[in-house]
Amino acid sequence: MKNIILPFLAVVISGCINAQQVPVDYVNPFIGTSNYGATNPGAIAPRGMASVSPFNVAGRIELNPLEKDSQWLSNPYVNENQFLTGFSHVNLSGVGCPDLGVIITMPTTGELQTDHLQYGSTYKNEVSKAGYYSANLDKYDVKAEATASTRVGVSRYSFPAGKSNVLLNLGLGLTNEQGAMVRVVSSNEIEGMRTVGSFCYNNAEAAYPVYFVAKFSKPADEFGVWKTPYKYKGEEAQWMAYNGKTRIKEGFTREVVGDSIGAYMTYNFKQPQEVEVKIGVSYVSIDNARENLEKEVGASSFEEVYAKTKEAWNKKLQVVEVEGGSKDDKTIFYTALYHTQIHPNILNDFNGEYPEVSTGKIGKTKGTRYTTFSLWDTYRNYHQLMSLLYPEEQLQMVNSMLEMYDENGWLPKWELNSTETFTMVGDPAAVVLADTYLRGLTDFDVEKAYEAMVKSALDTVNNPLRPGLKGYIDNGYLGVDSGVAGPVSTTLEYNIADYAIAQLAKSLGKEKDYNTFLDRSLSYKKLYNPKTGFLQPKYSDGKWYEPFDPLAGANFEKNVGYIEGNAWQYLFMVPHDIKGLMNIMGGAAAFENKLDKVFDGGHYDMANEPDILYPYLYNYIKGSENKTSSKVTELIKKYYKNSPDGLPGNDDTGTMSAWLVYSMMGFYPVTPSEPNYTFTKPAFEKVKINLNAKYYDNQSIILNFQPSKETIVSDQIPEFLTNDFFIDHNTFLNSKEINLITPEN
Amino acid sequence: MKNIILPFLAVVISGCINAQQVPVDYVNPFIGTSNYGATNPGAIAPRGMASVSPFNVAGRIELNPLEKDSQWLSNPYVNENQFLTGFSHVNLSGVGCPDLGVIITMPTTGELQTDHLQYGSTYKNEVSKAGYYSANLDKYDVKAEATASTRVGVSRYSFPAGKSNVLLNLGLGLTNEQGAMVRVVSSNEIEGMRTVGSFCYNNAEAAYPVYFVAKFSKPADEFGVWKTPYKYKGEEAQWMAYNGKTRIKEGFTREVVGDSIGAYMTYNFKQPQEVEVKIGVSYVSIDNARENLEKEVGASSFEEVYAKTKEAWNKKLQVVEVEGGSKDDKTIFYTALYHTQIHPNILNDFNGEYPEVSTGKIGKTKGTRYTTFSLWDTYRNYHQLMSLLYPEEQLQMVNSMLEMYDENGWLPKWELNSTETFTMVGDPAAVVLADTYLRGLTDFDVEKAYEAMVKSALDTVNNPLRPGLKGYIDNGYLGVDSGVAGPVSTTLEYNIADYAIAQLAKSLGKEKDYNTFLDRSLSYKKLYNPKTGFLQPKYSDGKWYEPFDPLAGANFEKNVGYIEGNAWQYLFMVPHDIKGLMNIMGGAAAFENKLDKVFDGGHYDMANEPDILYPYLYNYIKGSENKTSSKVTELIKKYYKNSPDGLPGNDDTGTMSAWLVYSMMGFYPVTPSEPNYTFTKPAFEKVKINLNAKYYDNQSIILNFQPSKETIVSDQIPEFLTNDFFIDHNTFLNSKEINLITPEN
Repeated sequence: MKNIILPFLAVVISGCINAQQVPVDYVNPFIGTSNYGATNPGAIAPRGMASVSPFNVAGRIELNPLEKDSQWLSNPYVNENQFLTGFSHVNLSGVGCPDLGVIITMPTTGELQTDHLQYGSTYKNEVSKAGYYSANLDKYDVKAEATASTRVGVSRYSFPAGKSNVLLNLGLGLTNEQGAMVRVVSSNEIEGMRTVGSFCYNNAEAAYPVYFVAKFSKPADEFGVWKTPYKYKGEEAQWMAYNGKTRIKEGFTREVVGDSIGAYMTYNFKQPQEVEVKIGVSYVSIDNARENLEKEVGASSFEEVYAKTKEAWNKKLQVVEVEGGSKDDKTIFYTALYHTQIHPNILNDFNGEYPEVSTGKIGKTKGTRYTTFSLWDTYRNYHQLMSLLYPEEQLQMVNSMLEMYDENGWLPKWELNSTETFTMVGDPAAVVLADTYLRGLTDFDVEKAYEAMVKSALDTVNNPLRPGLKGYIDNGYLGVDSGVAGPVSTTLEYNIADYAIAQLAKSLGKEKDYNTFLDRSLSYKKLYNPKTGFLQPKYSDGKWYEPFDPLAGANFEKNVGYIEGNAWQYLFMVPHDIKGLMNIMGGAAAFENKLDKVFDGGHYDMANEPDILYPYLYNYIKGSENKTSSKVTELIKKYYKNSPDGLPGNDDTGTMSAWLVYSMMGFYPVTPSEPNYTFTKPAFEKVKINLNAKYYDNQSIILNFQPSKETIVSDQIPEFLTNDFFIDHNTFLNSKEINLITPEN
Repeated sequence: MKNIILPFLAVVISGCINAQQVPVDYVNPFIGTSNYGATNPGAIAPRGMASVSPFNVAGRIELNPLEKDSQWLSNPYVNENQFLTGFSHVNLSGVGCPDLGVIITMPTTGELQTDHLQYGSTYKNEVSKAGYYSANLDKYDVKAEATASTRVGVSRYSFPAGKSNVLLNLGLGLTNEQGAMVRVVSSNEIEGMRTVGSFCYNNAEAAYPVYFVAKFSKPADEFGVWKTPYKYKGEEAQWMAYNGKTRIKEGFTREVVGDSIGAYMTYNFKQPQEVEVKIGVSYVSIDNARENLEKEVGASSFEEVYAKTKEAWNKKLQVVEVEGGSKDDKTIFYTALYHTQIHPNILNDFNGEYPEVSTGKIGKTKGTRYTTFSLWDTYRNYHQLMSLLYPEEQLQMVNSMLEMYDENGWLPKWELNSTETFTMVGDPAAVVLADTYLRGLTDFDVEKAYEAMVKSALDTVNNPLRPGLKGYIDNGYLGVDSGVAGPVSTTLEYNIADYAIAQLAKSLGKEKDYNTFLDRSLSYKKLYNPKTGFLQPKYSDGKWYEPFDPLAGANFEKNVGYIEGNAWQYLFMVPHDIKGLMNIMGGAAAFENKLDKVFDGGHYDMANEPDILYPYLYNYIKGSENKTSSKVTELIKKYYKNSPDGLPGNDDTGTMSAWLVYSMMGFYPVTPSEPNYTFTKPAFEKVKINLNAKYYDNQSIILNFQPSKETIVSDQIPEFLTNDFFIDHNTFLNSKEINLITPEN
């Protein structure tokens, strides 16, 4: 009878595993590591400043088809590449421009080799989990493992017997900035800094250092520093036998600076040995990097650090519990939630210090100073999700943004490590601030926030956030002759920001401002050409720009009217005035027809933000609400997968993942700065959102869905929902249970 | 009657001035700043680590015919150049290779300009004195003045009203090494480091940092850092609008590293203002540089620092007092003595710390750690002069050399800032150690010194001091097939070192060693070709190298047999066996005949060391002693002048100056490691040497000379002197008064 029992046992075991599987176990960090998702499978703690990512984008184009210097590549790791040249210790995730990807360690064996093209290796047996990564390096028979605490990357290298090396390469990096300093402090410690910056090939003047201290669990038998200088071209080159050649500075213990430098620790192992390497980082100083390392990790082992980080991840992720759905559904869901917890990330050191924006001073925070605000992306859905799931963090992010205003005189636009990268367009900070407040998270200096928003909306002189503001105010739109990139897109962004200001003004009782900004927020209509049915680029004098091609701008190509998109992808990007848009388009039928054409004509771009709200717009059309569910479900199925190419494109610091999290939970915040949601068919039978008791009275919200039904309606919630599929944020927050069932239509 | 009184008064006044002129007033640091003397007119304290030299060797070849990158140029300043690009704060004096010449400040006015080719200026009204330099910068109407304490350069810039800048350029430098770090600490402080090294285009692996802290007497109104990155050449260059362009990082307060970087302080002066800039340096750390600055200078004013340094110089120089001779005679004499007090220079910081040789550790001295040991030059006369005039310093130098042996396992050869530059040939440290001991300065660990000397004389495996040692021991000479450069020269150098070991062995009662090394010291004879009458290059198997050209090697050209010289310039370089050489040459007449030919045939090279003893060799020829005085007098007149071209060539860290000091005083130590002197006609009527009471019982030695007489003989000193014009060092030391009068011959 044993043969019968086995499958039964198997089922039981499988059941046990499932029962024991906690959210963190579903995370698959390989998702997004291909198809330009730009995530990486490295080890990181929630919102960590440090991370340890495999670095496989340098050189050997036959092994690394996505080579960092051969194109615009924004990630330290690409799943289809095969040639690994180390592990970088500060990394960005899901961004569209190269930066960071530096402080690269590499375990090797045999004679010291400092050229990454020589010492790099293929690898196998990759494992990636939340807070953990490992691979076996073919060339050296070395197993490399990585974990991380918030500010410390921890690696464990398992070496065979013989001569082994740990390289710390400060020349190599994803960033296009150059320049580093390194000093071997002792046979088990190295300190230094690496210059990073010019994110998106912008604002190179602001390039800045990241500092580090590396501690090794075993003192090296030999150590040193290498430097490859630039080749000297003068008359004197004839006497320089060493011209341009790599120098090995054995036993050197003072500072070495240069563009192509590194340090090494060499061991002569009689038997196989493990070496743990702990690297603390800081954007303030080497001393702070050392303190981060000591206070956060100290003498803890690799296993201890990993256990703590894994637990931190689980705590983060269990804020949402799901039932039903496949394992892949849960995997893409929790991985998406994981991807929302990488950026914005912590900038301040253990002691609270961080570099201020613009002032050159070192600030000190009592809470958390966040950085990496890709606000053009994140204002659309990300911060709304944070307000709901992680209100404490969202408030800290708002406070960080207000600190930046204090320091810089301006709110952030695309802030990275206290530099303003000035990438993308619009004035998204205003939207985030208003949205947070209006969702009930009011514990910040709203008057200051309002002042900052208004400044950027009104100051027409040297305004870094809203170029071309005067023309916008005068004409209601930015002309193609305004000198501002993507004038249609930028006009829409300014409209959305103005709407947010209006909403906050209303809430603060500033009636006059409310009217002014509400009025301003609708000026997009001036760009609507009834002849074509598009929002089109126009000259300041009112003439349409000719020739108009609604396809111009697809696939991120540069064009006259739009930023990273075309007329189709921007036509419906008026989330604050969908009904107004519907009117000027001639009513719901025309609106629906055009919207259908976006999808049917292949104009929909899931890979970028302007049109990510589109599938939810069907909920505005009485009788066509079912299209929202079917479109959303279809898009998820097409673009989100449990595989490296499982993101539609750049994750955009979690925005694409936030879209998935919302969509799989069954609701979405269509209008930024308007606290409500619309519904779609969830991916699970049951979704339980555990609310933060410090901020919300309601302990949890449960969304139930009967998978046999097609579309959605609520019971036990106010009646209007059954009318138009929208629910007010507060109503939602205070609902104990929401049952999504087939509507009567 | 007033008309008659005036000239009388004039005479009296002139007399008064002369009477008040102290040694320091005679120093003219412009001497040696042309004709490749390689000195500089910068401000420096005796044996200072820091100095402030005008820097006029960069760019604009039409104004700077001796441009640093257009040739092998070893000095930060050349008198005939006209385009000044700042003031360098660590400098070498009188060396033959480029290094240091970094940490360059420059006062400018108007808009910030960071390219030295743009901001450089011509200048006028140069003044240079011991411890002081000033010039007026034409372009800016700025007066720049400089003084220095041991480890701190102090500048005073007198600006007109308006916008003024002080630049601190860390890209520019005389050294061929690159790489610097800079950080603006506050509006009146900058710190950083600059890489230097690869002296003589050698040992680039050992390139090392010099650290600095700069303090400004007035806080700047604006400050910042600039960086010019290398031009990026990859695919991505198309997106880098900033590619290769200089970046101005306004208000930036964190570390910036790079090859071409600098910092600036900008002032907006309503009226003319002075800014004092104090720059402390260190070879250990920024902290030490700061401490050097604080403890050595602190709040002292420019005037106070200068007064102290001037007094220090005077104390140094008044060790010799002279009477008679012209003002130019006194000027070239005291300037030469001044030039002997620049190198070896102090390496240790105020707190005693210094970088050790090879170990990578920071050492701590209780006395003084000296550096810049150009021993191939200085073993010949320099250290003998130091033993006589500055015995305490000479002993400290010996101790520094022994510390290097402790650290490195080897004595120094050409040590610079705790790196062994491995330039030149031979084993000169042994000679210096033996000579010092044998001159009665025995207060050092002579057994260790002896051990170190013998190690280098016997160890045939990986011996960095004596390459080719095995062949030398086996054959008595280095063959042209030994792979060792200048095998004739190097054989002679090893002979001289072996002789020194023999002399010390004898003194220490090591009779066997004495015999061995004495025997070895005479092996040069194997290179004497009686057919040509020269010391010639030879193969290891005993065959002469053909063709032999006694002129090959003149003017520093590369050749098979000799280092920086030819057969004429090395033939008599056996100072320890002049009588033996005389014998193999066939006696005194043949010797004299050949020696005459050196001078008469134009083969004598006053610009380099191998033949600097030649004029004194006539004292070995009975009846021709007068030729020594006439040759020496003639050479002084020809090569030593009170003008920028007043040195015969490289000062060789004071060796050429030591030759002049001795020669003008009337005696010379022909044989290194043999404590005696021979005499020549002094340049003064009276020379008084004030001996250091801590080391010598005799308070002073007076040499009197009657200028009407032609050559020399002594009375009141032992009888042998009248026989062969030589005097034992101890006899000399204990003489109260030596009268040099016409000999009876």
